Amino acid sequence: VTTSVEPAVVIPRPEEFAYVFGTRPPLGTIRPGQPLRIFTEDCFGGLVKTTEDLPSRVCDLNSVNPVTGPIYVQGAQPGDTLAIHLLSITPTRPWAVSATFPHFGALTSSHETATLQPPLDERVWVYGVDLVTGQVRFQARDGRTVNLPLAPMHGTIGVAPAGGQAISTLTSGPHGGNMDTPEVRAGVTVFLGVNVDGGLFGLGDGHARQGDGEVCGVAVEAAMNTTLVVDLLKGVPTPWPRIVSDQHLMVVGAARPLEDAYRIAHVDLTRWVAELTGFDELDAMQLISQGGEATVGNVCDPAYTFVAKYRRDRLPSHLADPYLLAHDQLRADHAH
Amino acid sequence: VTTSVEPAVVIPRPEEFAYVFGTRPPLGTIRPGQPLRIFTEDCFGGLVKTTEDLPSRVCDLNSVNPVTGPIYVQGAQPGDTLAIHLLSITPTRPWAVSATFPHFGALTSSHETATLQPPLDERVWVYGVDLVTGQVRFQARDGRTVNLPLAPMHGTIGVAPAGGQAISTLTSGPHGGNMDTPEVRAGVTVFLGVNVDGGLFGLGDGHARQGDGEVCGVAVEAAMNTTLVVDLLKGVPTPWPRIVSDQHLMVVGAARPLEDAYRIAHVDLTRWVAELTGFDELDAMQLISQGGEATVGNVCDPAYTFVAKYRRDRLPSHLADPYLLAHDQLRADHAH
Amino acid sequence: VTTSVEPAVVIPRPEEFAYVFGTRPPLGTIRPGQPLRIFTEDCFGGLVKTTEDLPSRVCDLNSVNPVTGPIYVQGAQPGDTLAIHLLSITPTRPWAVSATFPHFGALTSSHETATLQPPLDERVWVYGVDLVTGQVRFQARDGRTVNLPLAPMHGTIGVAPAGGQAISTLTSGPHGGNMDTPEVRAGVTVFLGVNVDGGLFGLGDGHARQGDGEVCGVAVEAAMNTTLVVDLLKGVPTPWPRIVSDQHLMVVGAARPLEDAYRIAHVDLTRWVAELTGFDELDAMQLISQGGEATVGNVCDPAYTFVAKYRRDRLPSHLADPYLLAHDQLRADHAH
Amino acid sequence: VTTSVEPAVVIPRPEEFAYVFGTRPPLGTIRPGQPLRIFTEDCFGGLVKTTEDLPSRVCDLNSVNPVTGPIYVQGAQPGDTLAIHLLSITPTRPWAVSATFPHFGALTSSHETATLQPPLDERVWVYGVDLVTGQVRFQARDGRTVNLPLAPMHGTIGVAPAGGQAISTLTSGPHGGNMDTPEVRAGVTVFLGVNVDGGLFGLGDGHARQGDGEVCGVAVEAAMNTTLVVDLLKGVPTPWPRIVSDQHLMVVGAARPLEDAYRIAHVDLTRWVAELTGFDELDAMQLISQGGEATVGNVCDPAYTFVAKYRRDRLPSHLADPYLLAHDQLRADHAH
Repeated sequence: VTTSVEPAVVIPRPEEFAYVFGTRPPLGTIRPGQPLRIFTEDCFGGLVKTTEDLPSRVCDLNSVNPVTGPIYVQGAQPGDTLAIHLLSITPTRPWAVSATFPHFGALTSSHETATLQPPLDERVWVYGVDLVTGQVRFQARDGRTVNLPLAPMHGTIGVAPAGGQAISTLTSGPHGGNMDTPEVRAGVTVFLGVNVDGGLFGLGDGHARQGDGEVCGVAVEAAMNTTLVVDLLKGVPTPWPRIVSDQHLMVVGAARPLEDAYRIAHVDLTRWVAELTGFDELDAMQLISQGGEATVGNVCDPAYTFVAKYRRDRLPSHLADPYLLAHDQLRADHAH
Repeated sequence: VTTSVEPAVVIPRPEEFAYVFGTRPPLGTIRPGQPLRIFTEDCFGGLVKTTEDLPSRVCDLNSVNPVTGPIYVQGAQPGDTLAIHLLSITPTRPWAVSATFPHFGALTSSHETATLQPPLDERVWVYGVDLVTGQVRFQARDGRTVNLPLAPMHGTIGVAPAGGQAISTLTSGPHGGNMDTPEVRAGVTVFLGVNVDGGLFGLGDGHARQGDGEVCGVAVEAAMNTTLVVDLLKGVPTPWPRIVSDQHLMVVGAARPLEDAYRIAHVDLTRWVAELTGFDELDAMQLISQGGEATVGNVCDPAYTFVAKYRRDRLPSHLADPYLLAHDQLRADHAH
Repeated sequence: VTTSVEPAVVIPRPEEFAYVFGTRPPLGTIRPGQPLRIFTEDCFGGLVKTTEDLPSRVCDLNSVNPVTGPIYVQGAQPGDTLAIHLLSITPTRPWAVSATFPHFGALTSSHETATLQPPLDERVWVYGVDLVTGQVRFQARDGRTVNLPLAPMHGTIGVAPAGGQAISTLTSGPHGGNMDTPEVRAGVTVFLGVNVDGGLFGLGDGHARQGDGEVCGVAVEAAMNTTLVVDLLKGVPTPWPRIVSDQHLMVVGAARPLEDAYRIAHVDLTRWVAELTGFDELDAMQLISQGGEATVGNVCDPAYTFVAKYRRDRLPSHLADPYLLAHDQLRADHAH
Repeated sequence: VTTSVEPAVVIPRPEEFAYVFGTRPPLGTIRPGQPLRIFTEDCFGGLVKTTEDLPSRVCDLNSVNPVTGPIYVQGAQPGDTLAIHLLSITPTRPWAVSATFPHFGALTSSHETATLQPPLDERVWVYGVDLVTGQVRFQARDGRTVNLPLAPMHGTIGVAPAGGQAISTLTSGPHGGNMDTPEVRAGVTVFLGVNVDGGLFGLGDGHARQGDGEVCGVAVEAAMNTTLVVDLLKGVPTPWPRIVSDQHLMVVGAARPLEDAYRIAHVDLTRWVAELTGFDELDAMQLISQGGEATVGNVCDPAYTFVAKYRRDRLPSHLADPYLLAHDQLRADHAH
């Protein structure tokens, strides 16, 4: 996994997937700037294939949401930031699945919001995935179908946390993780603060598409072939995950209750815009209050997520910013 | 206020504004189908005009967020629904204001999320409003400006609640109220369940524009001239506010914590889509999980709001629905 | 209702109960210092008498939680505080009831925490109430019984709010209301800030006893004969309900999520202890952090409640305090 | 660490303390029934000794809340439960400390509930600890003192979680951890479900005392000498931490928002009481609703905690229960 013109390739063997973000032997090592092509399995480890394969029966609950990683980035040290630029995310199969899962999701009581009520029925939906037309096909029990646009993304992307923690791939935090936001799609750069040598990033939980908030707790889950390239921002710490696209600055906050995810994201976005523009924090907050956007990631995982967004074309004249510079350079370097 | 070809007109005298939604003598009476033109004052009662006019000094806190109303709708009875179709919302002045307010907003402790910390500084921003270019102009302390698109909306629209309650215009609930969502804009129809004879609706709190979540607690506040027409859905109860646009079905949920606003909106949207399509609730939830959208209204008022949305063109063949029919008819009847 | 040696008596006719706290014609008028004897009906209006009387069938949902009031207190003006000293609370019947109610309670989804799950079963429990032994008797479906100590209290006590609001007796806030805390029992003084002339207080929702948090949403509900005496603290504003007993200072906070009720109560208790002792706020917070107590009121109503408590014998030498003085004087004046 | 009449002793060297609960080489191994005497350092690693030692200056933030452990229990396997009976908890020094810490605590914005406000001042309090009089002495800035009862407890006690996770000792969950409840005191038995071979428990974070909710985020922090004895319940899984005392059954729930901690604890307590008594779940919930108690643990850590309690003498005739039997046997075996 070390040459440079050809992308490095990581295709884990079944027993090699990770279920925590933490310090463990890397699956591979890359140099900053070196493209990487990886395979990610779906959140059910590929075990749910038909409407008969109820997740609670076919899956081992300690082995859901497998992540491909960790990948060691040469030169990455605590206090740096990884800039993970996603070049492409492509479903590997002509189908994908969703499901209800007992006591999981936004519209049911759950292990955290516990009640004495029985769970909703467990059910599996198998979606057709058509790369040519760019659509996924929902099919209801009565056979009727609805086509929705294919919009591939990774629900889970993160680095090893600090202090010797090993955090389940089912949740999210300052290290990234299971953020479940559609903003992590091809064309964006995800910025994650490095906590341990090499950063040790991983990703998985591909979604062929997902609605805002991932209502039922499960998206259109798909194995993915993903290409990415990682750059390194030396000496730039990143407290919460940031994302830059051609259009937006974004920050992801993760917490419960949901307003705290919103607050985290917006406090950090406010400070970022203040630094970028030279405005004081109140001016930056005011500008975001009127010109900002916000999208909800998930309202089902152990930590809910919210993305605070601000359009780049609504910034006044501004200073050089390492995140914007890195994204724009990565974008330019890897344009087709 | 009773003729029919000419719109009825309601321009309250200063002492006539309402600060609660409840049963009180109406400002006017309209017949279903009769257009209405009203004036709404801004949330500060027009008293904040310059950066020197700090709201906590110039405003009486029991008289903020004035609403024009209540308006009595002939024939409306408990168990019916008002369909309030907004034809136009136009700022009346070439300026609008925003502000920080002590211990109010998403990024400060507040009266509800109380801490021992002092408040953020109180500050006023005066925006230029240009109806010709369709822009509002933010100006920072250092004089730099940023133009943002004009996008007029009403933060507050509601009816009298049940059971003799009189609910402050600062909060929201099943009766509507201070929802503070940009989805209440010209071209949509807002559906509110009737609790008392005549419905007794009112509206106010015009915003020249607002970001997602109204971060600082105050939008670009503007007095408005608004035209609307009300239709009546007899025998159709509406548990939470619904909105129909040419593109979307929407439900507004209002609660704290924020996830509960999300849940309320999505439970009702799920049931609506289930009824509309004939899908069972799990199929409807699944479809919304993957194809749904959600926008946050406010994360600052006593009740936070979330809007669950679903695109009409992502519905399969569906049954006649009184909300869609009413919107489409109102739209057709009042097209220019 | 105006003589002074004999207690004034208020026994409402069925149609006279109140279902909101707001400005309305008073049921009676008292002078400060004049004892008052009132009857309060149970939260179901006395309509649930047997295990067959399911609340959702026998009750009109706009007429639950009747309050006896409002009572006008001569001389009370906005900015003053009512000191309502509870002399005795006595169940009027040898039975009391509890119930589950569809989608209401802490261990079920609810109208606010909405899910797609069906409700728990609705069931009624009839308790024996024995004033002689001081016990209430729970009986399970299988006939076994458990005796629990009789501990009468009022779930609901409040005043008219400011700004023309009329707030449902089902919820609570700065005006008091449906706080559902066992701390409102005979021997304590409840302090409520006055918002309108006469204060217009009322009370109801007697509980023969209640566990911490009112898990199922309904306590051991009982009609009560209650005697009280009201004193007036002129020029003393009270932002949130305070309670003084012979042992404790207490503040009630009401909000969602539950931590916000806790915060409100503790911020106000901190400031109260700081004023009382002359400590700065950090010292007062530190002392409460280590020596304070906190009891949860309800985790089921529209606003959850928490009571922050501090033992009077853990105060250092302290200043005269109008709340402590008023309680101690009322206690002395009305000792048997 | 293997003989049996004499207690095993574990006194970690400074570099041996643990900052996560996870699978790592044990500090010692014990047999069920074998007493254990351990030393635990305070949450600041003993580095805060005077009012000049501000925690944010003298502590490394990745090395706070050291835990003595893990301890391997012979024979413990996933699906079993550890019964950790606390015989004594004794402060080792004549002083203890508390502090405010920037953006930590219930009455300030925090990393999770983020705002743009600056933190409260950081301050240290040094308490006198008097084992003879059984008191701790608070001293205010102005020199005045208040004595409070000594009431030693461990804020943190837990086992290794499942699935390869390593969870920071600053938070809590099904594995126990930083629950910060005064119910973990000498005389009780703490039951924790085993997830990995040997269970791998640890404890620390001694508090000389703590108020309900740990308002300021820091208790009266003290190094402790603690003796305990561990029993093993083979084949008994325990989903959330349970505690049995001579008076009470208890369950600890850990979550945000605070009502979810309350719900988790009460759902599990309801099921426990139902199993124990043979009541159905609704009868058990009803009994707890009226006869139950609940104490708040912390309202400051990453997961808030609530303890649901039920008095043993309020149970009807009941079945043998492994938790009660284990506690009573441990109590009898180790009575002085």
